[in-house]
Amino acid sequence: MINHLAIVGATGAVGQEACRILEQRSTPYGQLTLVASERSAGTRLRVNGEDLEVQELTEKSFAGVDFAIFSAGGGRSRQFAPIAVGAGCIVIDNSSAFRMDPEVPLVVPEVNPGDLKSHNGIIANPNCSTIVMNVAIWPLHRTNPVQRIVVSTYQAASGAGAAAMEELRSQTADFLAGRPVEPKVFPHPVAFNLFSHNTPIDQGGYNTEERKMIDETRKIFHEPTMAITATCVRVPVLRAHSESINLTFERPITPDEVREVLSSAPGVTIVDDTKTNTFPMPLAASGKDDILVGRIRQDASQPDGRGIEMFVCGDQLRKGAALNAIQILEALTA
Amino acid sequence: MINHLAIVGATGAVGQEACRILEQRSTPYGQLTLVASERSAGTRLRVNGEDLEVQELTEKSFAGVDFAIFSAGGGRSRQFAPIAVGAGCIVIDNSSAFRMDPEVPLVVPEVNPGDLKSHNGIIANPNCSTIVMNVAIWPLHRTNPVQRIVVSTYQAASGAGAAAMEELRSQTADFLAGRPVEPKVFPHPVAFNLFSHNTPIDQGGYNTEERKMIDETRKIFHEPTMAITATCVRVPVLRAHSESINLTFERPITPDEVREVLSSAPGVTIVDDTKTNTFPMPLAASGKDDILVGRIRQDASQPDGRGIEMFVCGDQLRKGAALNAIQILEALTA
Repeated sequence: MINHLAIVGATGAVGQEACRILEQRSTPYGQLTLVASERSAGTRLRVNGEDLEVQELTEKSFAGVDFAIFSAGGGRSRQFAPIAVGAGCIVIDNSSAFRMDPEVPLVVPEVNPGDLKSHNGIIANPNCSTIVMNVAIWPLHRTNPVQRIVVSTYQAASGAGAAAMEELRSQTADFLAGRPVEPKVFPHPVAFNLFSHNTPIDQGGYNTEERKMIDETRKIFHEPTMAITATCVRVPVLRAHSESINLTFERPITPDEVREVLSSAPGVTIVDDTKTNTFPMPLAASGKDDILVGRIRQDASQPDGRGIEMFVCGDQLRKGAALNAIQILEALTA
Repeated sequence: MINHLAIVGATGAVGQEACRILEQRSTPYGQLTLVASERSAGTRLRVNGEDLEVQELTEKSFAGVDFAIFSAGGGRSRQFAPIAVGAGCIVIDNSSAFRMDPEVPLVVPEVNPGDLKSHNGIIANPNCSTIVMNVAIWPLHRTNPVQRIVVSTYQAASGAGAAAMEELRSQTADFLAGRPVEPKVFPHPVAFNLFSHNTPIDQGGYNTEERKMIDETRKIFHEPTMAITATCVRVPVLRAHSESINLTFERPITPDEVREVLSSAPGVTIVDDTKTNTFPMPLAASGKDDILVGRIRQDASQPDGRGIEMFVCGDQLRKGAALNAIQILEALTA
């Protein structure tokens, strides 16, 4: 039972999506409070037929609030999530602030719902690319352990927020009109271009997004040494992430076995029509709850039959962020 | 010495690029004839200050022509290349018609120029994605044999020709204006979307583009059993292909060793600035001769030190097609 739910970062891309999902799923709650930074406070938003004024995020925002979904950046989560917990609120945090904290469960409800039991007030929502990959791989891993993952991503602008989506639109219009393109949100032009994910590169040469995919998957799967490598790339797509995934299993596995497992896996829709060349596409995944999985085939480079290739797409704002958070909320209150 | 050069498919995207490259490189030739299908015959084009009328492709197009670059589709190559050879012409064919013919050399001049010696009138220009990958990998393979390649591509619209590039532009404008998007050249919407390469899928689940990358690389490298797997994807980019490449070498290798080898490799420019997050991008590769290579790092999923990750971009119309053909022409006449 949710008496009083707060959405922190309600005017952002993920916060807005969370409001839409609450409506669509008819998630029951007593009271809803929308919270955002000073800049957006005062905005009025309509959720479930109710006209709500967005409140400014302060230390007093959580009085009487029993659940809060935070999606306002790592800095605000680090500052305000402990305050919310102190006020008796359970926080589902969409930022990376607490994800690798051993005291904080990091949960994809289709994968490790049992980890929810051990929370101390904060539950972390994984990185969007991690969620999209984990929903597709976990059911396979359970039947035949995955020994190595090689993933390359095709990530939408939505991962960098609403302003990044608008930059993709406006920059593309500028490009088509022959006007100069001026990157502001992204460090490089995004219109008709793509670039390595714009997060810092560590000593090992991996960027932060790639490390998240590696470290978070290991934590969610309870496989602390799983061999994973990732290459994360931004593409000029608005809101769904795609991933080309190469897997090595412990034992030989066939594409038909993969299809059989995934056909009954929660949160997965197989889109794999080789006759019409219809496979997962970000436009088709946008607005969908499920992760689309296709191009399922035996990896020709692993002659021992232990290799599988597949291509997946998932709505970054939805299952990659807001929906996963609301699924956690629903699991906590079930 | 080139007495008389013909460009077949002169009005297409690759043919046009070939004309520009002839100008830019001041490749010496006596006479230039531009040839195209009936539909484009009569068009006037300016090359090297000369105003040329495009001739219709017929069985008589090759009288007195000593070299021809074909870029007018596999059907026309199959029909007219043997006729050209019969007329005493050497054909450099950009289509896939003859690439896997054991009698036909398949050449990337930076990789296997020696194969040019054994031609019987036709030399095949490899697939664009193959060329981009091979230029980057070959110098490494020579110093430490590559045992396995896992590649995922991000392929530009230009690979499907000038009409596809125009479709990307016009469809994007339609999308931004809220008009319905109607795919014509591609089977799926390409604006703000991406999709599995639209070529037929074989029994093994690979599409034709992926098989080309596998089979052609094996032929060019003279490694008929090399372990290669590829996932080929179209992205809303105009003219340069990108590839995320995961390599397994015979012996351990470090990113510094890779950089050292590639820093002196022909046709390669390293773009790998981890401090400013500047890596290969299709916009930066467009119009460039070299393949850009970056994100060079030790693959964290291969703890024996034999794994390397890298990201490459190459101009599909240029090194991926027209430039490679003209480099073959130059090597034949050097």
